[in-house]
Amino acid sequence: MIEEKKALFIIFGGTGDLANRKLYPSLYRLFKKGYLKEHFAVIGTARREWSDEYYREIVISKIEDLAESEEHAKEFASHFYYQSHNVKDIEHYKTLQSLAERLDTTYQLDGNRMFYLAMSPNFFGIIAENIKSQQLLTETGFNRLVIEKPFGNDYESALKLNDHIRASFNENQIYRIDHYLGKEMVQNISTIRFGNHLIESMWNNRYINNIQITLSEALGVEERGGYYDTSGALRDMVQNHILQMVALLAMEPPTVFRDNEIRQEKIKALRALRLYSEEEVRTNFVRGQYGRSTINGETLSGYCEETNVSENSQTETFVAGKLFIDNYRWAGVPLYIRTGKRLAEKGTQIDIEFKNVPHQLFQTANDQPLPPNILSIFISPTEGFALQLNAKKVGPGVQPEPINLTSSHSAETTANSPEAYEKLILDCLNGDATNFTHWDEVAASWKFVDRIRAAWDTAEIEFPNYPSGSMGPIESMHLLKKDGFNWHWSPVTTIKDTTED
Amino acid sequence: MIEEKKALFIIFGGTGDLANRKLYPSLYRLFKKGYLKEHFAVIGTARREWSDEYYREIVISKIEDLAESEEHAKEFASHFYYQSHNVKDIEHYKTLQSLAERLDTTYQLDGNRMFYLAMSPNFFGIIAENIKSQQLLTETGFNRLVIEKPFGNDYESALKLNDHIRASFNENQIYRIDHYLGKEMVQNISTIRFGNHLIESMWNNRYINNIQITLSEALGVEERGGYYDTSGALRDMVQNHILQMVALLAMEPPTVFRDNEIRQEKIKALRALRLYSEEEVRTNFVRGQYGRSTINGETLSGYCEETNVSENSQTETFVAGKLFIDNYRWAGVPLYIRTGKRLAEKGTQIDIEFKNVPHQLFQTANDQPLPPNILSIFISPTEGFALQLNAKKVGPGVQPEPINLTSSHSAETTANSPEAYEKLILDCLNGDATNFTHWDEVAASWKFVDRIRAAWDTAEIEFPNYPSGSMGPIESMHLLKKDGFNWHWSPVTTIKDTTED
Repeated sequence: MIEEKKALFIIFGGTGDLANRKLYPSLYRLFKKGYLKEHFAVIGTARREWSDEYYREIVISKIEDLAESEEHAKEFASHFYYQSHNVKDIEHYKTLQSLAERLDTTYQLDGNRMFYLAMSPNFFGIIAENIKSQQLLTETGFNRLVIEKPFGNDYESALKLNDHIRASFNENQIYRIDHYLGKEMVQNISTIRFGNHLIESMWNNRYINNIQITLSEALGVEERGGYYDTSGALRDMVQNHILQMVALLAMEPPTVFRDNEIRQEKIKALRALRLYSEEEVRTNFVRGQYGRSTINGETLSGYCEETNVSENSQTETFVAGKLFIDNYRWAGVPLYIRTGKRLAEKGTQIDIEFKNVPHQLFQTANDQPLPPNILSIFISPTEGFALQLNAKKVGPGVQPEPINLTSSHSAETTANSPEAYEKLILDCLNGDATNFTHWDEVAASWKFVDRIRAAWDTAEIEFPNYPSGSMGPIESMHLLKKDGFNWHWSPVTTIKDTTED
Repeated sequence: MIEEKKALFIIFGGTGDLANRKLYPSLYRLFKKGYLKEHFAVIGTARREWSDEYYREIVISKIEDLAESEEHAKEFASHFYYQSHNVKDIEHYKTLQSLAERLDTTYQLDGNRMFYLAMSPNFFGIIAENIKSQQLLTETGFNRLVIEKPFGNDYESALKLNDHIRASFNENQIYRIDHYLGKEMVQNISTIRFGNHLIESMWNNRYINNIQITLSEALGVEERGGYYDTSGALRDMVQNHILQMVALLAMEPPTVFRDNEIRQEKIKALRALRLYSEEEVRTNFVRGQYGRSTINGETLSGYCEETNVSENSQTETFVAGKLFIDNYRWAGVPLYIRTGKRLAEKGTQIDIEFKNVPHQLFQTANDQPLPPNILSIFISPTEGFALQLNAKKVGPGVQPEPINLTSSHSAETTANSPEAYEKLILDCLNGDATNFTHWDEVAASWKFVDRIRAAWDTAEIEFPNYPSGSMGPIESMHLLKKDGFNWHWSPVTTIKDTTED
């Protein structure tokens, strides 16, 4: 049962990359499926001076691959209006206000408004302030503010930003996007846990040895060198995507599967993260920066050679860490995380390593312990699950060998599955905040991450320390090795470290 | 490391079907792999008068599909000797004894002897007796007696047979074949249980709802009508194969993975089977007999129309039952078993159904409970595992749907995996009785089965009660339905019941 949603979308940054690549296609998909029909309108705003007609042509060009027909694309685009806008100029909000009122009447939108800030976070505060002061908020319908990452660059700046926004919007009106929460397989973490007695009853420190999260990128910083050099992997990936996955993996079962209840559990989990001293950061966290290398004859630049990156940058392009959740369920279970650029293979994967059998009945080569049972959750690009068990090797006698029970979405399903942004916009239209981060989650995440950043900032280290195309610095392997574990996912490529060349 | 075995095989029933179809090919495979090399010899005995040369030709004809070369087949067959033999004639054992002595010297067999009784059980006792009285047993090597099913047709007859044999052989010299115990995936039951903490820690009544064992045959009785009509499915399949699988599924972990320790645990499990009163048999057991039907235009005979079957036979060709193992681990967990001829599909499969989630977080259609987690062990013809879990259906919102994590042997692996008989003969050469049934297992199985047989014998029922090509009588479904369960494996075919035609 698809129910039509009524809303006015006001997109700040309407000419930008995010709007073009993600928002317009997602809105069109919702239109195609009937979630959006007659009662919606979109106002795009940005500095440039565009006409409605030109804007609509742009919108059509961004969705033409998806469009059922030219007609249909045009019908969709006819709901789009453009307003040139300077976010600091009060007058512009007044114009916007009257346009909004007009469209509300024309399309019968019941006063429902979604303000989508698809632009630099520097302006989030002032936009929120002006939206309120210039009466863009309605009394009759919903008013929802959607904001993109990064939400601050440490706890202090995030708090300041949050205070600024909260002066105009309540927490339950704010939808902080972490697009990882829109991914099918990230959403599947809760389903596989709470939908299966077999899984959830093993989901604790009596059965789990360790949890491993890898978010691996094969690309370097590309054109994002300028931004990235001020951010680094810790802020860019760990504070948001990785800690969100940690929260979903670690949280207690909510009493009801609903946004408030779920987010309360995530907050509790994130607040239970052990905060490290400087000394503990050195023991439990590893940073890396990629260096030049040659793979199959192709030379890849080192990070410091990238455009808009400073020559002696101390910015990390790789982080590995060992986390602890200090509560009854997880006491003693390390969560290992890693993320980096220019790694051997692109992929996001979670591996749950279960404790080994209490007593080894079977003889193995060199009396090695049996390989552990591992549940792998493949987030992307593969979407699926694998469970590694030990079974009998075919032949005489009893020799155990690992087997993999697997289930993956077909390539077709993956291709046709709704894009993260499509689902997140629909969630927001439904007022379902499950897959958006609560301020308390953001706060707890920054408090954890700030300790690491602070410890790192006290000492420079020698970069680069891993060649492009490897799985990061050797210290990342040692982090697990010293606990008797290994990274379960270990793609291998043949690379030549040419940093010294 | 393949080590050559030294032994003299004396096969009673050397011209028979089992010898031809299973034993000669299995011995050749062991020869090809190097388990048998120079130091082995085979004496085939039977009533017919054959020469060694003729016998060898026959043996070659049974293995030629497998043979590396004609040479190699001939070399193998050169170890074979034929002795015409009447099992009741003492004189013949004397001839056999001197031939055995001669071959022991010629091939340097160290006095190792395997007596393989590949013939009617009626003669097991007398053969064992004469082997001993005529000094065919050696002092220097091993003396092992291999016998085929059926081992008696109730507890009393089995005990009598056992007493007869035990007058000549010790229990640890007797290898009772149940060829199901030679199957890769039956042997895998122990590996998957004791090699995986994830599995074994769930393997009890706190997590398991019920266990289902299906041994389904698509064929009818074929040419075995005469024998089958005196046996029936209960004696032919339940007493041995099915109860052996029950024992492997239910047993406690042995302290060491070795024949004595394993068989002790199996015996304990079988002795813990709840023995039913007549009344309980009627509630917990279902019998069936197939009737005529038409499938895709082809008419299949009813059981009573088969060759050598009596017109009003009360023999069951189908059994379904609900068993209980009365111990701490299994209290309250029903084990459902079923086996039959002329069922919808050929296959042996075990399904372990786990308890459902303690609290349902997700909304389902009509508020149905989530489908249970199920571990399936495919014994044959498919060899593999499947684990049914609930995961998120791709799309907006959270809708759980069952997925299957699977792992199967490739067709190639299955084709090349050692045949049950090959492995069992090798086990016997190694003195490993793990995959042979101990007398105490046979005894406990008969005691359980006798109760059912006795209850059935007090009342005739109306046969046939299921059409060929179905999954048995409707009462088999009710058996689970009344407990709130269903047979997990439910192949469907389009059949027309033509019993009344």
